[in-house]
Amino acid sequence: MKMRRAFAGGRRFAGDRAMGDKLKVGITGASGYAGVELVRLLTRHPNVELACVTSRSLAGELVADTMPSIRHALAEGFRFSNSSPAEQAGSDVDVWFLALPHGASAEYADALVSAGKTVIDLSADFRLNSLDIYKEYYGVDHPAPHLLKMGKYVIPELFGVSASDRLIACAGCYPTSIQIPLTPLLREGIAGTEYVVIDSYSGVSGAGRKASQDYSFCERNESAKGYGMPKHRHLSEIEEELSIAAGKTVVVQFNPHLAPMSRGISTTITLPAKVDCVDGVYDVWRKYYGGRPFVKMLAPGKFPDTLHVCGTNRCDISAVYDPRTKNLVLTSAIDNLVKGASGQAVQIMNKIFGFDETAGLL
Amino acid sequence: MKMRRAFAGGRRFAGDRAMGDKLKVGITGASGYAGVELVRLLTRHPNVELACVTSRSLAGELVADTMPSIRHALAEGFRFSNSSPAEQAGSDVDVWFLALPHGASAEYADALVSAGKTVIDLSADFRLNSLDIYKEYYGVDHPAPHLLKMGKYVIPELFGVSASDRLIACAGCYPTSIQIPLTPLLREGIAGTEYVVIDSYSGVSGAGRKASQDYSFCERNESAKGYGMPKHRHLSEIEEELSIAAGKTVVVQFNPHLAPMSRGISTTITLPAKVDCVDGVYDVWRKYYGGRPFVKMLAPGKFPDTLHVCGTNRCDISAVYDPRTKNLVLTSAIDNLVKGASGQAVQIMNKIFGFDETAGLL
Amino acid sequence: MKMRRAFAGGRRFAGDRAMGDKLKVGITGASGYAGVELVRLLTRHPNVELACVTSRSLAGELVADTMPSIRHALAEGFRFSNSSPAEQAGSDVDVWFLALPHGASAEYADALVSAGKTVIDLSADFRLNSLDIYKEYYGVDHPAPHLLKMGKYVIPELFGVSASDRLIACAGCYPTSIQIPLTPLLREGIAGTEYVVIDSYSGVSGAGRKASQDYSFCERNESAKGYGMPKHRHLSEIEEELSIAAGKTVVVQFNPHLAPMSRGISTTITLPAKVDCVDGVYDVWRKYYGGRPFVKMLAPGKFPDTLHVCGTNRCDISAVYDPRTKNLVLTSAIDNLVKGASGQAVQIMNKIFGFDETAGLL
Amino acid sequence: MKMRRAFAGGRRFAGDRAMGDKLKVGITGASGYAGVELVRLLTRHPNVELACVTSRSLAGELVADTMPSIRHALAEGFRFSNSSPAEQAGSDVDVWFLALPHGASAEYADALVSAGKTVIDLSADFRLNSLDIYKEYYGVDHPAPHLLKMGKYVIPELFGVSASDRLIACAGCYPTSIQIPLTPLLREGIAGTEYVVIDSYSGVSGAGRKASQDYSFCERNESAKGYGMPKHRHLSEIEEELSIAAGKTVVVQFNPHLAPMSRGISTTITLPAKVDCVDGVYDVWRKYYGGRPFVKMLAPGKFPDTLHVCGTNRCDISAVYDPRTKNLVLTSAIDNLVKGASGQAVQIMNKIFGFDETAGLL
Repeated sequence: MKMRRAFAGGRRFAGDRAMGDKLKVGITGASGYAGVELVRLLTRHPNVELACVTSRSLAGELVADTMPSIRHALAEGFRFSNSSPAEQAGSDVDVWFLALPHGASAEYADALVSAGKTVIDLSADFRLNSLDIYKEYYGVDHPAPHLLKMGKYVIPELFGVSASDRLIACAGCYPTSIQIPLTPLLREGIAGTEYVVIDSYSGVSGAGRKASQDYSFCERNESAKGYGMPKHRHLSEIEEELSIAAGKTVVVQFNPHLAPMSRGISTTITLPAKVDCVDGVYDVWRKYYGGRPFVKMLAPGKFPDTLHVCGTNRCDISAVYDPRTKNLVLTSAIDNLVKGASGQAVQIMNKIFGFDETAGLL
Repeated sequence: MKMRRAFAGGRRFAGDRAMGDKLKVGITGASGYAGVELVRLLTRHPNVELACVTSRSLAGELVADTMPSIRHALAEGFRFSNSSPAEQAGSDVDVWFLALPHGASAEYADALVSAGKTVIDLSADFRLNSLDIYKEYYGVDHPAPHLLKMGKYVIPELFGVSASDRLIACAGCYPTSIQIPLTPLLREGIAGTEYVVIDSYSGVSGAGRKASQDYSFCERNESAKGYGMPKHRHLSEIEEELSIAAGKTVVVQFNPHLAPMSRGISTTITLPAKVDCVDGVYDVWRKYYGGRPFVKMLAPGKFPDTLHVCGTNRCDISAVYDPRTKNLVLTSAIDNLVKGASGQAVQIMNKIFGFDETAGLL
Repeated sequence: MKMRRAFAGGRRFAGDRAMGDKLKVGITGASGYAGVELVRLLTRHPNVELACVTSRSLAGELVADTMPSIRHALAEGFRFSNSSPAEQAGSDVDVWFLALPHGASAEYADALVSAGKTVIDLSADFRLNSLDIYKEYYGVDHPAPHLLKMGKYVIPELFGVSASDRLIACAGCYPTSIQIPLTPLLREGIAGTEYVVIDSYSGVSGAGRKASQDYSFCERNESAKGYGMPKHRHLSEIEEELSIAAGKTVVVQFNPHLAPMSRGISTTITLPAKVDCVDGVYDVWRKYYGGRPFVKMLAPGKFPDTLHVCGTNRCDISAVYDPRTKNLVLTSAIDNLVKGASGQAVQIMNKIFGFDETAGLL
Repeated sequence: MKMRRAFAGGRRFAGDRAMGDKLKVGITGASGYAGVELVRLLTRHPNVELACVTSRSLAGELVADTMPSIRHALAEGFRFSNSSPAEQAGSDVDVWFLALPHGASAEYADALVSAGKTVIDLSADFRLNSLDIYKEYYGVDHPAPHLLKMGKYVIPELFGVSASDRLIACAGCYPTSIQIPLTPLLREGIAGTEYVVIDSYSGVSGAGRKASQDYSFCERNESAKGYGMPKHRHLSEIEEELSIAAGKTVVVQFNPHLAPMSRGISTTITLPAKVDCVDGVYDVWRKYYGGRPFVKMLAPGKFPDTLHVCGTNRCDISAVYDPRTKNLVLTSAIDNLVKGASGQAVQIMNKIFGFDETAGLL
């Protein structure tokens, strides 16, 4: 059966494909930890075929050698390729996941979007709305200002995504752990926007896969410490999005830390309540997340645990109200490499292409 | 050579002892992690003789079997004893460290203080000033109300301790990590007292030495999570002391967490500044801590790391000022079992008895 | 569409089921770590329906509360049940996985096998051939001697399993890590059977899920140590099976250890070679494992790593030959809870029922 | 009071020094993990003054910045220096600890020994007796063949050391963990020398302090694996020394592994017994180690644990006899950075200079 091509660029939707016909996907820059997770998720995804995995530094090498943990799931002889933006644009791969460093995505995104491909970018390049803020936090001019408007910032539980979206900016790891518990409360006006304090503890994989004495086992084992305060790069994204949610400028204190674990982010948010008990929080959360497969609300007094979400695309959230301070304390946990990166990217693809939202993610 | 007894109760001071004559000390309830640290520190302390280590449950057993990490430092055949408060009061041991659970110290303290002994209590029994607060947070009536006034709450860098003190309440682990950076700022009035948010991450030894599935390796490894919010027991002590420091009632949000490490507390405090840069903070800190052996100020932008204080009696502190939020963010790190418990107790003994403050602690 | 029942006892095979019709499976005694893995694997298995999860101690409780890491994959309100052997035998569940302590499986196995169910037992109860050896190593008389012959000891890559098997004894974790590299060499006669030395390092989950000070985080973190030498229980199973492989009595030195990690077994086997280079080993291995999905041969000089097999049903193996000693040194790594327990159990079910061997395991 | 100089080169012995007069020591190449431990031990050693700490790469930087864990024990403003072999030879520092990479020690040793200094070398440069073996295992010609004979290989419990020794080769970490339990048995002839199999698991600090993806937290956490088999560099030293102990050539299988911990070596040795029970082993051990402060014999069935020796200069040893195999299984644990490197070096200095053997080491 011949598939109907939905529109220029050749994007194919779930309803358009014959049984067994799979969406062709590729990953650009797959050598890091998020790349491994993407390969893991996409090789077992029932609706896609992972056609291509690129890495400039590893081109020609066996993917299995760099990703020994998924050795058994890889085709014999599957190798990293190297392809230019133009070559990728000219290929028959429908969807490209960009797992490149910040600043490097734009060139690929430009070529791919022009060629009608769908681009799901895991970098920060298209997360911000303001060129000035980008420059302030990333230290360079934005590499593709003309695409900024096109880039759609997405956490699937909070921001609609549609079949016509072509350039997706996946939310960052810290920002995902923060917005899932917090954004609904700001949108519904049940929490104050001043004196918001956010403390997050991240596993070491958040720093990426690299040779560095700072991230060596002996330096990070038994080590808990803050870093990057008071102006971590993710703050730009956090404040832009919280301000949109609240309908006014929100400035927060964001305190990131490293914890001695490979994966996971534990986030704790303190902010003034506009309610006098925790029930209102759960009512709002149920409105947003009831029945959603990847957000689990824990009862007040049970606290999200990174170990419990490790390897999953889930965000666990919980809240308590403190009558002494009249604050809410929100807690959340995600796997930074899954819900904070690759899993969320796959979830977004699922929604764009009409697959089951959980396809490949359970 | 006969020593001069300084006063009733037989306390002997540094100057009173012949060369080589050592202060006799004992530990009551030494089977936990703080107990191991106390034994470790006191066995190598140049001015004391560890005469007695008691444990009701381990009486008669070799100390080396319970404390294999200091096997080499223990005398052959050194065993846990069991002795009643009266027996301890009647002994020739000058100083008793109580490493008992909360609620169990009072009976011993009563007998020992009456007999003129010096008591250094590591439990919470004599930390609070208010019987009501004690009952609210610990769920039972205070076991020895008549001693509450006598109990002196001590962090040596912040509270004077004198040769005449007989009943010392060592500050708790979280409270020590909080007060060392924060108390001077409140005393000097350079920080606000509203909207104070304190997030702490503790190693697992903070939960004590016990058989529990919750604290098993497989449940805590790779796990970061909050617990006990919004009203952890240490909050009572924290707020009482911060209120004294500020000269008015201080109510704070205290968010304790567990991190996957054996030891250490990493604390991050966010609070409104009454200064417009970080210099004022360091000026105050230098006034309090300049030349003090166990508090190290790190330059702004360098963050205290639990790994770096592990096994030491040190508290590392640092601060940044955020002009966007007009907040100060203070960070600290201690070893919860040393500066947060046993090391601090030894430091207090050193000061009471006129030993070098660092004796046995380097 | 009505399924054809293949034979008494109601076992249904892949070919007998209508599309979408699923095999009903249950787990008896699912509260431990292997139980969590079984639930995880069976809830996402395409060919089965997990109908029932029992636990005497947790009956009535939500499975999600005990298994928070797979919270998202569990049906709302799914609870532990408690059912007697007779009730399980009378149910419409086709396959029962027994994840009970050693000694407790026999009663269930007896009732279930009599009722024509398929029983896949993860305990040691049916692994041995000799009642005397069972008593010697487990300290009690065998609880169901009449079933011993029926019990089929299985590692799918080494022992055939057929549609008619009713009582399966899954190989233990250490024995799996040992037999996969070693058994083919003994069968083919290219390695000696004297002076065999086996050192294994296991993650802490191998000790089970229990409240114990010995397995607390602070006791196991940073701890590597031997235990149970020279006569660990698994030795009985190892020697029985290696003797069968070699066609003569094999006695080995088995040195088990604990390593500070949650999961994984790293095994290193030293034994005299009957070849003069490593090629012969790989030739034999290729004969046994070429194309098999769950055994990966690494080139000599690349060593299996527990991290790389963690969460997978894979066994990685490698070998070097030492011309100085004329020994072979074989190394392997498995996830003790997957290939060493639950994953292997599912793989066995897949083969018995004609499913794809990798179903639910990738 | 003027000290008597004992002989040319200015070495001063315990008896020669006035009360309070301290031996001047220096460390060359102190930037690694063994260097930190040396600085830690020597700054608190009662009989020495740490006069100089050199590092080519860190010259001019504050030692406290590289060694934050001992920040409190370092003099204000204490910096790494850089000095040539000639400058060191001309200084008034009496003892030099060389913590340089293999191959780099010789140049310093040559100059220092010629100038009458005492050199305690932690590298492998002077551990071997044979130039050929050195070249075979280290890949280069020995850098100072004329010093090989002068170099004295020392584990203080096994090899005498005297006041006249000038060039000490400290035993390596693996070799120390092996020889302490094994050498006495070979010397006394109660164990066989064929079919000796040694498996060791080392913490990650054994690989040194360096920027490397292989030793990053995320690659080593939860990872147990073999490496460097069948011919690890330490094998040369192990076999040379075991052969001397046995009085004939001993060839062993040495299987080193990495375990996910910062420190510690756990070693398990399997070898044929020439006794028929374990008592003979303990009798020999008591003869060698009875009363020695840093070797502790555990009863058969209690196994040495790296956690218990961490931070100490102790080696714990234990043995079982297996009547089935007629093998002895010896187990040991050390801290690779202390008894396996810096602590042992200090212990050697203590013996050479007549200090208490445990000075600075408890």
